[in-house]
Amino acid sequence: MSIITFLTDFGTHDWFVASMKGVALGINPAAALVDITHDIDQGDITSAAFVLDMCRWTFPKSTVFVVVVDPGVGSERRAIALRAGGRSFVGPDNGVFSFIMADTEDCEIHQITNDDLFRKPVSATFHGRDIFTPVGAHLSHGVSLDAVGPLCTDPVVIERPTVVNTDTVIRGQVVYIDRFGNALTNIDRTVFNRLSSPPTIVEIATATMSLGTHYAQCPRGEALALLNSVGRLEIAVNGGSAAQRFGLHPGAEVIVK
Amino acid sequence: MSIITFLTDFGTHDWFVASMKGVALGINPAAALVDITHDIDQGDITSAAFVLDMCRWTFPKSTVFVVVVDPGVGSERRAIALRAGGRSFVGPDNGVFSFIMADTEDCEIHQITNDDLFRKPVSATFHGRDIFTPVGAHLSHGVSLDAVGPLCTDPVVIERPTVVNTDTVIRGQVVYIDRFGNALTNIDRTVFNRLSSPPTIVEIATATMSLGTHYAQCPRGEALALLNSVGRLEIAVNGGSAAQRFGLHPGAEVIVK
Amino acid sequence: MSIITFLTDFGTHDWFVASMKGVALGINPAAALVDITHDIDQGDITSAAFVLDMCRWTFPKSTVFVVVVDPGVGSERRAIALRAGGRSFVGPDNGVFSFIMADTEDCEIHQITNDDLFRKPVSATFHGRDIFTPVGAHLSHGVSLDAVGPLCTDPVVIERPTVVNTDTVIRGQVVYIDRFGNALTNIDRTVFNRLSSPPTIVEIATATMSLGTHYAQCPRGEALALLNSVGRLEIAVNGGSAAQRFGLHPGAEVIVK
Repeated sequence: MSIITFLTDFGTHDWFVASMKGVALGINPAAALVDITHDIDQGDITSAAFVLDMCRWTFPKSTVFVVVVDPGVGSERRAIALRAGGRSFVGPDNGVFSFIMADTEDCEIHQITNDDLFRKPVSATFHGRDIFTPVGAHLSHGVSLDAVGPLCTDPVVIERPTVVNTDTVIRGQVVYIDRFGNALTNIDRTVFNRLSSPPTIVEIATATMSLGTHYAQCPRGEALALLNSVGRLEIAVNGGSAAQRFGLHPGAEVIVK
Repeated sequence: MSIITFLTDFGTHDWFVASMKGVALGINPAAALVDITHDIDQGDITSAAFVLDMCRWTFPKSTVFVVVVDPGVGSERRAIALRAGGRSFVGPDNGVFSFIMADTEDCEIHQITNDDLFRKPVSATFHGRDIFTPVGAHLSHGVSLDAVGPLCTDPVVIERPTVVNTDTVIRGQVVYIDRFGNALTNIDRTVFNRLSSPPTIVEIATATMSLGTHYAQCPRGEALALLNSVGRLEIAVNGGSAAQRFGLHPGAEVIVK
Repeated sequence: MSIITFLTDFGTHDWFVASMKGVALGINPAAALVDITHDIDQGDITSAAFVLDMCRWTFPKSTVFVVVVDPGVGSERRAIALRAGGRSFVGPDNGVFSFIMADTEDCEIHQITNDDLFRKPVSATFHGRDIFTPVGAHLSHGVSLDAVGPLCTDPVVIERPTVVNTDTVIRGQVVYIDRFGNALTNIDRTVFNRLSSPPTIVEIATATMSLGTHYAQCPRGEALALLNSVGRLEIAVNGGSAAQRFGLHPGAEVIVK
């Protein structure tokens, strides 16, 4: 049993995702194919990196993640495959795997150069179909990571914004807005432990709110902050959009006291 | 062979649905995963209940339906699992299974309390991933319904609007607008038989139309009423939106003569 | 192992696609189900025909394609099933398979008349669920094409716009706009060979641009033309929408020099 997942900025209006799935099933007919999302904003590598990092933990070991947010397709940017925490990842070397590389001790990265694994002819504009998916399908079907090409020691990396804390205050920022308008931050539960007493208040530029535990806790239409399902501090409005209400965007400062 | 379906209000912009699928495949790697829809309006329990009721019949017996339209997640609302007509259903006890309970004689309902079946740690905001999906996957993988927890005898129920009929007229209402703008009603073909003669005319507040059999029957842009593919009276505009044309919303009165 | 794909104009807001998948798995529980897209504009048979033609090549032989863009459902329009290039196709006889028929020498077309293969009762408004999907699932499960009904020798055909060329100029037109706003044309790489020297310039009504090879080749926000991943001349704006920038729609003239 093997699982191949797909994360792209292709949308679902055209046939692009389906073409990748056709190629995958041609190589590994028994694979279970799962969509992460195809609604990443066009070329938004940072959001794709975040989404991938948030969901990879819920998939079984040996899952292969094919990621195609690839504004540099056809240029000199490299293609890479990596293994981290028992799972495999295939895509462009543009930083989309940065957070996996930063957080996983056993991460092994290879440049993809073995064109025996590619779909031919390789187009200049759709490496998702011609390189990333076939390499991912071969990995899911028993090909070793060594076989894709040489070790890569200098992958492209996106730096994450840092969290600054004293024993009384934590300063971080919004890093992702989900479809409900919840604003996810780079502050996670581990930072909370560095405070001398449990935090109770969260401040953003335009509002201050209490720290709660679940959405239904406050009246419909009111704001709260909570540690969400992936362990991140999140600013939410029960039944509404916190991003819209407070004008929150990635980069907005968030303070916990 | 087992099938697990997913019905949520999560949209497909983020990783939430994928996280549930990763959890499901971790428990039952051979399951076929099918999306019902993820585009239920946020927290619209009644529409989710309707959609579930409309499509469940087309799935094989033994299919498991995981439903996550759950505005009360993290609060005291219970989690339930039920078996009806040979199929299983897992989700919050908020009325989303009301129509199944009302229409199925052999319906058996259990409260979900056995946390051996949960994903740990259980978050306060994503029971879809941590409770409903793992319980559903275990049910699809051979765990018995008894094992999830004790019988539940007082589930939350949503009342459906009633259809009133004499031998010459039927009064019902719109209950769902589909993506084409067709207005589905709570009037089904069985009620038609209670009229002393076959109906021919359908009236709404702003229009009167003939009762036909299929969309292409009337000229493009014209309205008709018909018994649709799920046996419900539906108000449609060939190639257009009846909801938009006539200002139809759930609750709008519909009269058949 | 068998694959069944679905291409419709149903959207993903309701339960219609899921109903077809439930029916398919009831007949062939081992089938892998793949969505092509459900976002074809309502009743846009020509776009559906184009999308199908673009993606079918990437799927393994023996794949079954169920196509439900069917504005004439319930009328006298016939249902057909065909085999071409080792793959099978099932849907309405409204021209949606025209390009497959035109381009495949070994194409065998049958009218669907054997109602033993249908889901009963057959509704007047959802042949996707009651006829096309069950017939497709039976084909994927070993039923022969002969079994669906008699040969069809006069299928409905959509004519494609023609490409005109001399040895110095090619005249074609836009045939599809993808979700990025790229404008795909009916000019493919084989026509390029008919020119006495390699082309370098592409003209549309409102602009002239160079012929390149990949998006990242020109600065962000600038336009280029290229042979895309399906071998078609495409007009693109790096990181933007060519359709929006230049007001391009299907039918717009494109000249290559």
